[in-house]
Amino acid sequence: MEKKKIVLIIGDGMADRPDKNHSYKTPLEVANKPNMDFIAKNGICGIMNTIGYGIPPGSDTAHLALLGYDPYKYYTGRGPFEALGAGLNLNKNDVAFRCNFATAEERNNKIFITDRRAGRGEYGLKELGNLLNFNIDDVDVIFKTSSGHRGVLILRGKGLSEKVSDSDPHTTGEIKDTVPLDNSYEAKRTSEILNKFIKKAYQILNNSEIQNERIKRGEIKANIVLTRGAGKLGEIENFEKKYKMKGACIAGVNLVKGVAKAVGIDVIEVEGATGHFDSNIEGKILKCIECLESYDFILINIKGTDEISHDGDFERKVEMIEKIDKAIGKLIDKNMNATIALTADHTTPVTLKEHSGDPVPIAILGDVRTDEIYRFTERECAKGGLGVIKGIDLINILMDLSNRKEKFGA
Amino acid sequence: MEKKKIVLIIGDGMADRPDKNHSYKTPLEVANKPNMDFIAKNGICGIMNTIGYGIPPGSDTAHLALLGYDPYKYYTGRGPFEALGAGLNLNKNDVAFRCNFATAEERNNKIFITDRRAGRGEYGLKELGNLLNFNIDDVDVIFKTSSGHRGVLILRGKGLSEKVSDSDPHTTGEIKDTVPLDNSYEAKRTSEILNKFIKKAYQILNNSEIQNERIKRGEIKANIVLTRGAGKLGEIENFEKKYKMKGACIAGVNLVKGVAKAVGIDVIEVEGATGHFDSNIEGKILKCIECLESYDFILINIKGTDEISHDGDFERKVEMIEKIDKAIGKLIDKNMNATIALTADHTTPVTLKEHSGDPVPIAILGDVRTDEIYRFTERECAKGGLGVIKGIDLINILMDLSNRKEKFGA
Repeated sequence: MEKKKIVLIIGDGMADRPDKNHSYKTPLEVANKPNMDFIAKNGICGIMNTIGYGIPPGSDTAHLALLGYDPYKYYTGRGPFEALGAGLNLNKNDVAFRCNFATAEERNNKIFITDRRAGRGEYGLKELGNLLNFNIDDVDVIFKTSSGHRGVLILRGKGLSEKVSDSDPHTTGEIKDTVPLDNSYEAKRTSEILNKFIKKAYQILNNSEIQNERIKRGEIKANIVLTRGAGKLGEIENFEKKYKMKGACIAGVNLVKGVAKAVGIDVIEVEGATGHFDSNIEGKILKCIECLESYDFILINIKGTDEISHDGDFERKVEMIEKIDKAIGKLIDKNMNATIALTADHTTPVTLKEHSGDPVPIAILGDVRTDEIYRFTERECAKGGLGVIKGIDLINILMDLSNRKEKFGA
Repeated sequence: MEKKKIVLIIGDGMADRPDKNHSYKTPLEVANKPNMDFIAKNGICGIMNTIGYGIPPGSDTAHLALLGYDPYKYYTGRGPFEALGAGLNLNKNDVAFRCNFATAEERNNKIFITDRRAGRGEYGLKELGNLLNFNIDDVDVIFKTSSGHRGVLILRGKGLSEKVSDSDPHTTGEIKDTVPLDNSYEAKRTSEILNKFIKKAYQILNNSEIQNERIKRGEIKANIVLTRGAGKLGEIENFEKKYKMKGACIAGVNLVKGVAKAVGIDVIEVEGATGHFDSNIEGKILKCIECLESYDFILINIKGTDEISHDGDFERKVEMIEKIDKAIGKLIDKNMNATIALTADHTTPVTLKEHSGDPVPIAILGDVRTDEIYRFTERECAKGGLGVIKGIDLINILMDLSNRKEKFGA
């Protein structure tokens, strides 16, 4: 039996709920998307709970599940995935955090956050971030500015725990010390080191020459680092070892790239892949076709649909879906002997502007039992031959349809 | 409430995928099978993942699951089921192997396999097998020739492990010593004993008078035993104790009989039940009807569909399904007050000639919520009222529909 290649296309947050302001239809129901519908019509359809019934997934936990890794086992926080996605290496016992540069001022010896994103001004942030690499109490502090006002922080050393509270107050106001979230020695030690880091970073950032340059340019101070999303990567079985497939990921955003790196699959960069509405989606699909020569499994994440959903823009989501559809056409035209799956990582209703726990539609083109579903929509796919599946089962289904699954038993 | 009897009919590997060489239909979709369709029409239908989504089951693991035993807990290898099916008794700590008689020759003090099946000639194999019962290092070696060139081997004694490699090279060529598959003392000891057995058996087989008779008859030497599929039965809860049902199994092949014996249900022999295309299927159904007097639950396995699927013969699979259907007619005509379930243990697409992980159709006739499914096919059943079920849940569903399930709670 010839082993087939697998392409998994994920429209991030692409699924939706009917919107009463749009004739009770979803963006997928309104969009003109002949190529997605081609996959539905010539494939087998279903709906999928990526994490669990009624659980709104994050993109990180959803992608873990879709790659066959139980997020309840492997996910401790967003930090590690952001850190990996930003290009840092991570050891299994490192504690990683997502960070913001923010603006703080002192009143009566207390520190108050006045802008959680330092005015979103990016000038000098890369250089400022580079200043935040040092050692505290035998722990290496590794900081990297990622995109915009964002950064990632790693604490590397013995006896560290991810069970520490955010230093980010998630609003303006007085900054609080982080506290341990359990009774362990490690959590206590980690929160102490984190607090020392925040104070030391505050000193360094306030006294940096780059900060002065920044102010001269009319931007507000980026003089404090807010931390959140603490997590440890832990031990994750390597994708290639687990599935005997060489895997790759094409994505615009760091979080998804980070998940890919965490499970050990290659991240393939595509010029102009931004994770936004203007992303080079066609470029991603063309790169996928090219890379199928050397990879067995390629996951393509397209983030724009989710970003637009968070903005609550129905029409723009329809437009984005149509852009994705056009790009998918390039893949279908190739008529390769690959198993192609189309789905979303979660539902993001434009009416909610947040992730929800509704299942997502899924359609698989390949050596399948075609059903009588002709359109790739949430409600049509729910009537399909796959029934309701779980995210974590998807990779087994795709491998089985691609002659890559070993029999259990005789 | 009167407790009803249960009949579970399993067409081995009967489910399939649409075949492009047959108008994208499956054998079940092409076959004329009024009795199977009667069960679908007057019953409730669904699809079932016997082991798990996308996991191609073996017949052994699938049957364990369909009898309500988690194969991931109870299955260590095929050996024990073959040994039981061949009529040997098995203790829970015995290590059992499947074996082939093969032909070997020595070159430069090394042993080479020249025919893995000793030319498939059966003459004298029973007698030769009987010579292979002795003791090595306080371990009882029990060997029995089963069918054709096949046999089963049991190692019985203290400190044995099933974690040993196959001695069968699975191809012609130099025979290798078996090696332990983990670091335990038991695995090391077992592989040493197994290697001693193979050498001793080689001596005995080469020097047997029956071997000379065999050669005089123009057959090639059956002078070595190849071992594979090592497994331990372990502790399996008795079926009758677990379900308070007296169970029986009617099957042509040793593997399924062995699963039945492993869980402690009676194996009922039927003359002419061969597990092949020519099997006496009607005889099996008639025997089932007869035995329903004295049993509460009867599993009937019909192997022919799987065998034909492995040969890739679409038309013959259709023919086999029609034969099974005709026999099922006898059961339906009886109009007994029993719950009758019809399914497959796994999918074996004729296009693949191997087991696949696609779900199997299931239809249950009895005191059920009938749905609008009129045909017993993979794709019709997928739209049925049962939805998607797991193999391990089937027996509970059947017992519940037969008034045999105790309430959990008050």
